[in-house]
Amino acid sequence: MKRDYRHDLEKTARQMILVHRVDTLIRLILRTIMKNIRVKHSGIFLYDKYKDEYVIRVSKGRRGIKIPEGFAKIKKDNSLIRYFTDKELSSFDQDFLLYNRINYYLKYSRSKGRSDLVDFLEDLKGQLSLFQAKACIPGFFRNDLIGILFLGAKEGGGVFRPEELGFLSVLASDVVMAIRNAWLFEDLNKQLDKNKKLFLNTVIAFATAIEAKDKYTSGHTERVVKYSLIIADILSKTDPGVSAEFIENLRVAALLHDIGKIGIPEEILNKKGILTGKEREFIFKHPLIGANILSPIGEFKEIIIGIKHHHERYDGKGYPSGLKREETPLIAAIIAVADSYDAMTTDRPYKKALSKDDALKEIKRNSGKQFNPRVVGAFVEAFEGNKI
Amino acid sequence: MKRDYRHDLEKTARQMILVHRVDTLIRLILRTIMKNIRVKHSGIFLYDKYKDEYVIRVSKGRRGIKIPEGFAKIKKDNSLIRYFTDKELSSFDQDFLLYNRINYYLKYSRSKGRSDLVDFLEDLKGQLSLFQAKACIPGFFRNDLIGILFLGAKEGGGVFRPEELGFLSVLASDVVMAIRNAWLFEDLNKQLDKNKKLFLNTVIAFATAIEAKDKYTSGHTERVVKYSLIIADILSKTDPGVSAEFIENLRVAALLHDIGKIGIPEEILNKKGILTGKEREFIFKHPLIGANILSPIGEFKEIIIGIKHHHERYDGKGYPSGLKREETPLIAAIIAVADSYDAMTTDRPYKKALSKDDALKEIKRNSGKQFNPRVVGAFVEAFEGNKI
Repeated sequence: MKRDYRHDLEKTARQMILVHRVDTLIRLILRTIMKNIRVKHSGIFLYDKYKDEYVIRVSKGRRGIKIPEGFAKIKKDNSLIRYFTDKELSSFDQDFLLYNRINYYLKYSRSKGRSDLVDFLEDLKGQLSLFQAKACIPGFFRNDLIGILFLGAKEGGGVFRPEELGFLSVLASDVVMAIRNAWLFEDLNKQLDKNKKLFLNTVIAFATAIEAKDKYTSGHTERVVKYSLIIADILSKTDPGVSAEFIENLRVAALLHDIGKIGIPEEILNKKGILTGKEREFIFKHPLIGANILSPIGEFKEIIIGIKHHHERYDGKGYPSGLKREETPLIAAIIAVADSYDAMTTDRPYKKALSKDDALKEIKRNSGKQFNPRVVGAFVEAFEGNKI
Repeated sequence: MKRDYRHDLEKTARQMILVHRVDTLIRLILRTIMKNIRVKHSGIFLYDKYKDEYVIRVSKGRRGIKIPEGFAKIKKDNSLIRYFTDKELSSFDQDFLLYNRINYYLKYSRSKGRSDLVDFLEDLKGQLSLFQAKACIPGFFRNDLIGILFLGAKEGGGVFRPEELGFLSVLASDVVMAIRNAWLFEDLNKQLDKNKKLFLNTVIAFATAIEAKDKYTSGHTERVVKYSLIIADILSKTDPGVSAEFIENLRVAALLHDIGKIGIPEEILNKKGILTGKEREFIFKHPLIGANILSPIGEFKEIIIGIKHHHERYDGKGYPSGLKREETPLIAAIIAVADSYDAMTTDRPYKKALSKDDALKEIKRNSGKQFNPRVVGAFVEAFEGNKI
């Protein structure tokens, strides 16, 4: 094997280990092939475990071929796959498949009267012609065929030299390791995504269940989440504190802002008349009850703050802590505006809904009194941009 | 570089990519060194990003050294680390550090009157002596020193040959890639663990909040989870269906079995007298309400079944579906026994608690009537083994 192959193989192997996206990996592999062997194109058939078939990926060489429609995938019983995996074909050289050798195999099979092998080889020849493949090199992990590297004709014509096939063989086994590594990463990342969705869906289910207690607030939670995220999106343009993490916490806090209502009897929540002092006290407690329910969840620190303080007022006359001005964390100040706007624009047991424009006027009028002016500014911008 | 080194390096590099536990990786690396170069011991200083220091791991060679107490970790300002990372030391060969070269560097530094370098080199010499290191090879990723391979004296004495140092240098850069890869896996797995805990803690918080509605059932949920898992543990010995996944679903289902009570007014839950027909109807609905609340969560299919049917009876006289015998899924049949046992052994608004033994008798008496006999069998086994 030529020394420069070695060097490039080592370099590629070292790069491959850090590439965890199969797509990027394939580009790197094909680039390494094209750099070391001057062929018209190269490609790889890669196993897709979800579909249990092999998917083709081809280099964009100067004279790259166009894969015929419908041939981007091949099944496990395709003759090309079987050539390497079928133990009954071991009379052929299963370490490589060279297009030029097929005619020789055909002659041999005809001489032995093996019409089954003749049929198989004719089909195989057809397959290789489709992809204009002159050499195929399999990559196995234990007994599993992970993929097949294939090369088109050499730029200057001629056959593949033994050192070129040796290079491809070493590359194929490096590729197998790197692909398996990338698969594991993809699996872990998919699992992470799945878990995040499960978590969020669970929180949504609980939020919906709590909302159901209060028959006048159908859809309230969903709208508060929506308004909160729109406000945060606008604030994020100027406030670096409104990060992706902040927004994720805001989403959960807005979903759960009324979770404390779980502790308030339905007859108080749904009462049409004026609340007694004791009943109002109950209502005033819900941000604290909510914060308490979630307090064992260490990761919810920011979320709990958002829930606990979403009824504070900018002038310090809110509850439960009477926080003033910027003392109220932004996450809570955002929910406060979103929550109030939705309360104003929907019918409640104690009063009729305002129009959107009247509600906006109320929000503006209360800027610096009930609401944080920065949040009101973002809300007004969203409203005027028809986002709310 | 000798050909057999090459072969072993390739093999090791390919193995390393599939090893995602740093500990296993280190063993593999040290084995590769010891196999290729006959030294008394070898080791690695590996960066620990959580502690921002380097941790030493040493081969168990036949004449392995014992690392002095308190020297298992070295800080970033240790002279050995600085030798490779301090740009002001570039007059020395920072690609390698050979113990024998230090005296030469010392002479040179003294001749230049650089007492700062003399002090540094004396300290460095002391460090190397502690670990009986004769050669050190750094492994960098970009500008970060990921680790340092080090070797003790050669078994037969003598100096390290250039091809040996070349081998170690290539190995070091392979090691860097493999370590980074393993770190990424560890990070992803930690993230997965964290998310799982977050999910479970969130579910527990909600379950606790729901339980708080019903003042007579403090601790009920926790105990039902405990009994359910003990029963499942016994069943898992003979029933392959009681898998790790089944048990995780059972845990969540038991946590949330009464989540439907969120829809039942407190005055019904806490009523001391006999329930009216309408009130009973409300109570009978809670498994269905619970199933409904969770129905949007696709991953909860099994969990929802457990919640929906935890009030079915083996004789078909239960609710909500009147399922008979094995028609009731095992997950629900387990919760049924655990739930009933806890209800019997705690005070309720409508009756006093039974003794543990009397409750056991009740469970046994109802085997094949209210309860699935297989589950009762496991429960009795747990009880008699003092697990309940």
